[in-house]
Amino acid sequence: MSKRINIQWQPDKNDKTPIYKQIVNYFSMMIVEGHWSLDENLPTQRDLAKQFNVNRSTIVSAMDELMASGIIETAYGGGTKITNNSWPLLAYSTFTNWRDFISAGPFKSNQEIIQTINKLEFEDYIRLGTGELDPSLFPKKLYDEVMANISKDLISLNYLEPLGLLDLRKELVKRLALEGIKANEKQILITSGSLQALQLISLCMLNDQSIVYTEAPSYIKSLQVFQSSGINLAPLSMDDDGLKYWQINTSRLKNKRNQIIYTIPDFHNPTSVSMSSLRREELLKFSLKYNLPIIEDSAYSELFFDKKKTKPLRANSNNNNVLYIGTVSKTLAPGLRVGWIVGPESVIERLGDVKMQVDYGASSISQLIVKEFFASGLYDKHLIMIRKELKMRRDNAIKAIDKYLGDQVSYRIPKGGFYIWLEFKKKISTEKIFQKALENNILLNPGNIYDFENNNCIRLSYSYEDSNTLNKAIKILSEIIEDI
Amino acid sequence: MSKRINIQWQPDKNDKTPIYKQIVNYFSMMIVEGHWSLDENLPTQRDLAKQFNVNRSTIVSAMDELMASGIIETAYGGGTKITNNSWPLLAYSTFTNWRDFISAGPFKSNQEIIQTINKLEFEDYIRLGTGELDPSLFPKKLYDEVMANISKDLISLNYLEPLGLLDLRKELVKRLALEGIKANEKQILITSGSLQALQLISLCMLNDQSIVYTEAPSYIKSLQVFQSSGINLAPLSMDDDGLKYWQINTSRLKNKRNQIIYTIPDFHNPTSVSMSSLRREELLKFSLKYNLPIIEDSAYSELFFDKKKTKPLRANSNNNNVLYIGTVSKTLAPGLRVGWIVGPESVIERLGDVKMQVDYGASSISQLIVKEFFASGLYDKHLIMIRKELKMRRDNAIKAIDKYLGDQVSYRIPKGGFYIWLEFKKKISTEKIFQKALENNILLNPGNIYDFENNNCIRLSYSYEDSNTLNKAIKILSEIIEDI
Repeated sequence: MSKRINIQWQPDKNDKTPIYKQIVNYFSMMIVEGHWSLDENLPTQRDLAKQFNVNRSTIVSAMDELMASGIIETAYGGGTKITNNSWPLLAYSTFTNWRDFISAGPFKSNQEIIQTINKLEFEDYIRLGTGELDPSLFPKKLYDEVMANISKDLISLNYLEPLGLLDLRKELVKRLALEGIKANEKQILITSGSLQALQLISLCMLNDQSIVYTEAPSYIKSLQVFQSSGINLAPLSMDDDGLKYWQINTSRLKNKRNQIIYTIPDFHNPTSVSMSSLRREELLKFSLKYNLPIIEDSAYSELFFDKKKTKPLRANSNNNNVLYIGTVSKTLAPGLRVGWIVGPESVIERLGDVKMQVDYGASSISQLIVKEFFASGLYDKHLIMIRKELKMRRDNAIKAIDKYLGDQVSYRIPKGGFYIWLEFKKKISTEKIFQKALENNILLNPGNIYDFENNNCIRLSYSYEDSNTLNKAIKILSEIIEDI
Repeated sequence: MSKRINIQWQPDKNDKTPIYKQIVNYFSMMIVEGHWSLDENLPTQRDLAKQFNVNRSTIVSAMDELMASGIIETAYGGGTKITNNSWPLLAYSTFTNWRDFISAGPFKSNQEIIQTINKLEFEDYIRLGTGELDPSLFPKKLYDEVMANISKDLISLNYLEPLGLLDLRKELVKRLALEGIKANEKQILITSGSLQALQLISLCMLNDQSIVYTEAPSYIKSLQVFQSSGINLAPLSMDDDGLKYWQINTSRLKNKRNQIIYTIPDFHNPTSVSMSSLRREELLKFSLKYNLPIIEDSAYSELFFDKKKTKPLRANSNNNNVLYIGTVSKTLAPGLRVGWIVGPESVIERLGDVKMQVDYGASSISQLIVKEFFASGLYDKHLIMIRKELKMRRDNAIKAIDKYLGDQVSYRIPKGGFYIWLEFKKKISTEKIFQKALENNILLNPGNIYDFENNNCIRLSYSYEDSNTLNKAIKILSEIIEDI
């Protein structure tokens, strides 16, 4: 345990310098002049507030500024420590105020709860909401086979074509054709995960006058890419056939340009609803009539449990109104960061040009791996296994929910994908559940992060934890809910 | 050869509908109603202009719109063909005008010449300007060793921590320490190539009021990421010691916020100048005095030929004013798309949060490969080989230049890195050289794309083509220049 610094100084309330600034100046001086030594811990914010007789928020402001300047930082195991006491040039008494900088850019931050979840996923929690496959489902043997195949021909890992590895795009042309989507290689752009396709669309095709219509609840709300770019989202509720597109105010469509629909028609995240064939047809007609194109996110479409999947929106003959997005993140390995977007050549070329500007293409080795998984037939072999496994896990999850939460929740039985959208019957604070679950070593995704308004739901994922762990966690969850 | 369509129709110059729109409507109708069949070639733009008695630009507008709508496309081998004649719903006579969409986003396109180079690099040209290592220098044996090591422990390829693979960041902590840079793992963000670090900075820390001061000529000018985001660049000329920072108008610094310096202090792209130790010290003092932070791009710093490299700017004790960017793209393999940025925790956390929003992290397999290259010592082994090889290639390039271009150019001898910045003594159009070289199967990078004004230079890279090929190309280049 580090020594804790003892402070005698007091801010001067008659000084015109704001109190928080006085604290910053005093702390800077003590550190720069070497009175406080490196790695000593500062008193807690609570103690400082008490000692200086100021509001806690004043201390927070001062600490933020000191932290942004980089001379103090969060210590491991909590508290605050000094990072650097050897700034001879601090004599200038000016140093970059990084806080100004990091708030100057146009792009917004994630919601705090998303930031928290992003971090806690790498600590030792049972992950009841994670949108990833169980690592134990990674097909290590097939992967080794793929890597051996690649290694034979691999001579270097240089940059690839602006639209991505040509051989991968050729494989996609074939795979897409099987789903009824006609596309040539120039109509496909390989992206660094399908999320990047949304970022490229937001950079190239939308602006702060744009509206993105989307399912409510939706995956998109849990991500920030559109909103962080200042683009507006408009919620559309769903029924069992999917998106209720007729809620779009068509009078608004005539005056405004650059509006677009974003939908996950297959095993929707987070509700698991799939759009019916009829609804798809209607939606396409509507889209054409009102000049309102569609982003079709097919992330889960391969993960059907029973009957074969419904035809994609882009498979329709009037497909040019649809931008189709695909990925291997939900089926094979999210860490490959390989996705793709299919659209008119003009759109793909524009997105590809901007992709070259922002990251100069997706990882070549990742693209080679996906190409080889496709070309060798091992991907399709793997899909059969994954579908079977996910179906078993779904059945188990449903049993556990019925057993432990039966009276308290309602839900749809998913016919594919990862998620069960649990709605609690009694009015309940999902934030409280989130906190209580954390205390019980369970990390879950409260429904609010997917929705446009407060709801009474959580997204349960049966893809990540094995059945035993899931059952235990659902049991604990039921106890938490009874206690609340 | 496809059949060419024969058109009898003429636009009506008395109609209020613009001529280009009449053409769009007529073409759409002929295609939709099936008068013209799929894959038939349209007449050339020149022929259409003649036949309709309109300007060529009118035809271009009409073709652009038809192409943006996706019903015609560029045919392989030139010309224009019909892609899709089966749009029953076109009866609505509205379809998405993709052209409106692709120009609606805030992000700008690459310069046309950059787009051309990006594409031609994948055709069969001698690449005299490419900023990549020769694929034959890829260390296939070391790579196989690395892959075998990884495979032993690899169980899945899931998402990684928001800041990137922890073990990779730990390796970087050690490597950075050897260069005199103190950093902990929370001060490092792994990016999808170092270019992405610049994009994240532009999204988070700069805005359209910002100024980025940079060397002229500069790498940054050849890429668009800052400019495409509407951020202003200000050029600073160089001498043999590097960036002449004193050209910055300091009176402007006091009123404006969010200005930053971008510099490549080691073996600068494209001039090969390295900043002297003294200049680095002065620059840092200036940076602190005026609250003007620095982005230090170290892409080439490992590629020194003789004496060990100069200490990085961030190695100075007042390092917190510097954001340090690194990559393996120039030393090992650009296709891995792995870079990193080192800075204050507060900055790194902000950039990391936005990285999660735009692509959810860099490829896990790429990060594992780089980690293992570092941890095994194979990277350092490889660097020794690469330095030796590049030095030999530089020596050869200098000989060839002196032999074939001796009288016509002046240049600095690079002491590291990839580039020789050739300045022609006589006033010459580098665009003409670019075109003539293309006709001779040589792709080169004209100096204009790196500069803020026209110049008389080209960037010659000795990293990509082997010595024989380079010699031949330089000989041809000298003949081209004599002919111009």
